[in-house]
Amino acid sequence: MAAAPARPPVLLWACLDTPPEPWRAAFAAAMPELEIRMWPQIGAAEDITYAFVWKVAPGVLAGLPNLQAVFSLGAGVDRIISPDVVPPHLPLVRMVDPGLKDGMSEFVLMQTLYYHRDMPAYATQQARREWRERDVPLARHRTVGVMGLGELGRTCAEKLAQMGFAVRGWARSAHDIPGLTCFHGAEGLGAFLAETEILVCLLPLTPDNRGILNAETFSRMPRGGFLINVARGGHLVDGDLLAALESGQIAGATLDVFQVEPLPAAHPFWSHPRIIVMPHASAPTYPETAAPTVIEGIRRHQAGLPLLNLVDRGAGY
Amino acid sequence: MAAAPARPPVLLWACLDTPPEPWRAAFAAAMPELEIRMWPQIGAAEDITYAFVWKVAPGVLAGLPNLQAVFSLGAGVDRIISPDVVPPHLPLVRMVDPGLKDGMSEFVLMQTLYYHRDMPAYATQQARREWRERDVPLARHRTVGVMGLGELGRTCAEKLAQMGFAVRGWARSAHDIPGLTCFHGAEGLGAFLAETEILVCLLPLTPDNRGILNAETFSRMPRGGFLINVARGGHLVDGDLLAALESGQIAGATLDVFQVEPLPAAHPFWSHPRIIVMPHASAPTYPETAAPTVIEGIRRHQAGLPLLNLVDRGAGY
Repeated sequence: MAAAPARPPVLLWACLDTPPEPWRAAFAAAMPELEIRMWPQIGAAEDITYAFVWKVAPGVLAGLPNLQAVFSLGAGVDRIISPDVVPPHLPLVRMVDPGLKDGMSEFVLMQTLYYHRDMPAYATQQARREWRERDVPLARHRTVGVMGLGELGRTCAEKLAQMGFAVRGWARSAHDIPGLTCFHGAEGLGAFLAETEILVCLLPLTPDNRGILNAETFSRMPRGGFLINVARGGHLVDGDLLAALESGQIAGATLDVFQVEPLPAAHPFWSHPRIIVMPHASAPTYPETAAPTVIEGIRRHQAGLPLLNLVDRGAGY
Repeated sequence: MAAAPARPPVLLWACLDTPPEPWRAAFAAAMPELEIRMWPQIGAAEDITYAFVWKVAPGVLAGLPNLQAVFSLGAGVDRIISPDVVPPHLPLVRMVDPGLKDGMSEFVLMQTLYYHRDMPAYATQQARREWRERDVPLARHRTVGVMGLGELGRTCAEKLAQMGFAVRGWARSAHDIPGLTCFHGAEGLGAFLAETEILVCLLPLTPDNRGILNAETFSRMPRGGFLINVARGGHLVDGDLLAALESGQIAGATLDVFQVEPLPAAHPFWSHPRIIVMPHASAPTYPETAAPTVIEGIRRHQAGLPLLNLVDRGAGY
């Protein structure tokens, strides 16, 4: 016997600092029967059954009595995991979308190649009109270490391995990923770092790993390595990076995320000659690919199937 | 009945501007019985049966009466194809080596991503301490056009397609490559260029395509496109690129090759803010991977098998 047709869902879009129109269009294309309310025009609060959020203020979702699930625009949920933002009884779904993975792997691959191919040195040579080929190893002789082996970390590590790099991964818990040498836990960190020439951070931010990109971590890498932080600003101890750049222990860094965003104008990272500052733009969330992912989640939920990519509030991601 | 053992081959290494030691070591590792003579210490000229050359002077090879085949260190043979450099009766083998393909695809992928992700604009923003995410399309909505579909062009085009770009290829003759939209000949050039936002040149240099990167070519691309020339300097009309950058028809260029190399200190490319100058270093030839490729060719020749990757002197590559 067929189930009674479900009432069409009503989605609250509540994303700060985000242009709304591409999202409205992408949701409408993915599920024409969906009713969308664009925050702060929420209409009757009791209509709303799902919310799609980014940088949403505390209290907004608590006022929605029939809310059934919350979907995050971004993969990192540290800004919204607090119970006063997303009430703890509600399922919270992190964004895992092919566009996000593609965007992140584009960026990580680009910056890894940039350091692998010695491009900062070539730029210096160009400024001096110096014609000199630099010694660049084969990718198989270049070790890239990826911290964090979730959806994004794993995807980036696999793409780096496809390009021929010697890739190692590190995470809190043990992983077994074909083509990668995997390390885990505090006891595996030293061995992971010992040969990592280019360090890519894609960890979720948790109390355990806050500040993990610090002087001790840098000191365990081979001298003259590079850092690509595309995770969260809270992973990095800013002063330790500046000191490691000063000493030459770290030769260059690409930072997409910061303790305070936007990065304050007075911060020394902006003008550092060996730091590339990006405005948290390494992995754009594309409405064209992300909206269908959210709609798939809503359809699963309406069909009584378990939601995928649920945040574990105990683990913090 | 087994054939009589062949006399061990003698290889002349004659490469200008190239450190000899890594090559000597790599050849010795790949074929311990090989005798190697390092130019200009050639010893008895009649001993030499094979030559491995780069930027070799006219006349050097003509004095070797028992020379049987010539191997080029580089993929592009336009500098050595003249009959006074490599005598016309000798087979000439171009370098097709996995290290060369890997190095070239690393470079092309890196610079394509650099333009795709709007990195020049982000660098400008960083200099102004401006925090602003730029609008970057999904790779599938970015059209990259690769001119030249030989070993290197095809490899790069396939890697770009694997990264999700909309890739089209153009060559002198018709090609059918899965995942690519292919165009050919003068009659196909306009259609190829019409949607090419990032143009990658990997053509062999021939009299037919000298100067193909010119004002007319640029004018047929969408406004604000990018050029990556990793083929030969002779493909580019320097003044036409400068004019296209000035008008905004071309937004930026990465040039690895030049009409005169090293690029003269007074050339305007060096200091142009939207040109990246590289010292012909996009695809290093790695002794570790290239020497075994040459040795494989020598073994084939000694076994009476046809040589692979022979240069067609009529076509010029």
